[in-house]
Amino acid sequence: MAYTTVMTVSYDGAPFAGFARQPGQLTVQGRLEEALATALRRPVDLTCAGRTDAGVHALGQVVSFAGEDGDPEHAAMLRSLNALAGPDVVVTEARRAPAGFSARHDAVAREYRYRLAPGPVPPLFMRDVAWWVKGSLDLGAMRDAAEALLGEHDFASFCVAGTVARVNAADGIGTVRGIDLLEIAPCSELGEHIAVVRVVGRSFLHSMVRILVGSLMEVGRGRRPASWMAEALESKRREAAGPTAPPHGLTLWHVSYPDEIWL
Amino acid sequence: MAYTTVMTVSYDGAPFAGFARQPGQLTVQGRLEEALATALRRPVDLTCAGRTDAGVHALGQVVSFAGEDGDPEHAAMLRSLNALAGPDVVVTEARRAPAGFSARHDAVAREYRYRLAPGPVPPLFMRDVAWWVKGSLDLGAMRDAAEALLGEHDFASFCVAGTVARVNAADGIGTVRGIDLLEIAPCSELGEHIAVVRVVGRSFLHSMVRILVGSLMEVGRGRRPASWMAEALESKRREAAGPTAPPHGLTLWHVSYPDEIWL
Repeated sequence: MAYTTVMTVSYDGAPFAGFARQPGQLTVQGRLEEALATALRRPVDLTCAGRTDAGVHALGQVVSFAGEDGDPEHAAMLRSLNALAGPDVVVTEARRAPAGFSARHDAVAREYRYRLAPGPVPPLFMRDVAWWVKGSLDLGAMRDAAEALLGEHDFASFCVAGTVARVNAADGIGTVRGIDLLEIAPCSELGEHIAVVRVVGRSFLHSMVRILVGSLMEVGRGRRPASWMAEALESKRREAAGPTAPPHGLTLWHVSYPDEIWL
Repeated sequence: MAYTTVMTVSYDGAPFAGFARQPGQLTVQGRLEEALATALRRPVDLTCAGRTDAGVHALGQVVSFAGEDGDPEHAAMLRSLNALAGPDVVVTEARRAPAGFSARHDAVAREYRYRLAPGPVPPLFMRDVAWWVKGSLDLGAMRDAAEALLGEHDFASFCVAGTVARVNAADGIGTVRGIDLLEIAPCSELGEHIAVVRVVGRSFLHSMVRILVGSLMEVGRGRRPASWMAEALESKRREAAGPTAPPHGLTLWHVSYPDEIWL
């Protein structure tokens, strides 16, 4: 019976030139496809839920490929893949979905988390997964600003300039996207105090989460009032929003699919 | 007025041959003393609360040295030290105590935490700060075993063989130590499921926490019954206890001093 193999993958973004395969570059896709070719003894073409940029991490990236009858059972496949692809890429789960399933097109929600480490001294254990912001952050003002972004909007101000034409050509929905949850909360991880920005939506434009965080930070640092966010959104020009936050603070946290899809 | 400068320091144990200065080796003490010599324009001799071994991390190591009147104020000192010693060593706090204060001798309690990552696949984000244990762990059995270790005991079975003579010569208390808290709890950090062993006591023997965790793991993995721990303790021979757990799972978490000591 034809089926799709679906794997959940974690990776440290630091050593990689992003997820997507690029000739002559170390990429997550390249590393995984190489390991799969060895483990399955055939070439495999991966589809991913979110094409993370260079330096961006993933806890719950999802990849899919067409399974074949002779493929090893999942526990054995995980063992060989983790031996071959690790230690900075780890496959944590493998499942089956019907033939034709796509990790990208069948995703119903994506969650990203961005970690900020405000304070007078840099974080130590969180230094590779959080953006150190010297000084303090007004999380309340950031939450006020975030309200303008919730729901469906044209996020043209919050995507890499020049992608609009390509986006339109590719799927016909342009730069309109929906944000279902945008939460900003202080927390402690590895003993260090940080703030986490959680963003959930069906799909995101290129660099959208990082530009959104970079813009929220303008408010958090007191450079802009919370009301500025609505203006930035309405102007539909990249220059109207804040800078792009650095990649190492961002993690593709979780991707959701319809429950009934798993075989 | 004569005083002591007391600093709280975090470090990643991986690149260092331990805390204590050793000729020709990269050590935390060497790195800090070099940065202090530059920042204060004079040589400084540091005393630390816990001489961590190679690979062991610290969130709240405490170091002290005799302050001088011309020394920069604390905020400026933190800025220069972090610029000079970082990014794998971060000084998070500086305080003043009376002359004669010692980070080692005045400590009233030390807390260590050891992170275990049980499961079929290795941890990704926690890989440098947790010990991956393939398979599952019986935390309940580990808690039962831990009860035998609480309170004051002769921990000769839980220290590096050969240190007994040196310990006796140095402070006359031999291998008797007290464990005030030993807690084993599951938790989630950086999105990954781990178990944390918290150990609190006034002071510990060389490698005591790692041998204690290595012994608890014998029970957690079902190789020994919980009742074996009391026998291991009573035998007072290193061979009777379990193996030494690897250094990268261990963090010197916090050191306590009498509140009234700070100037």
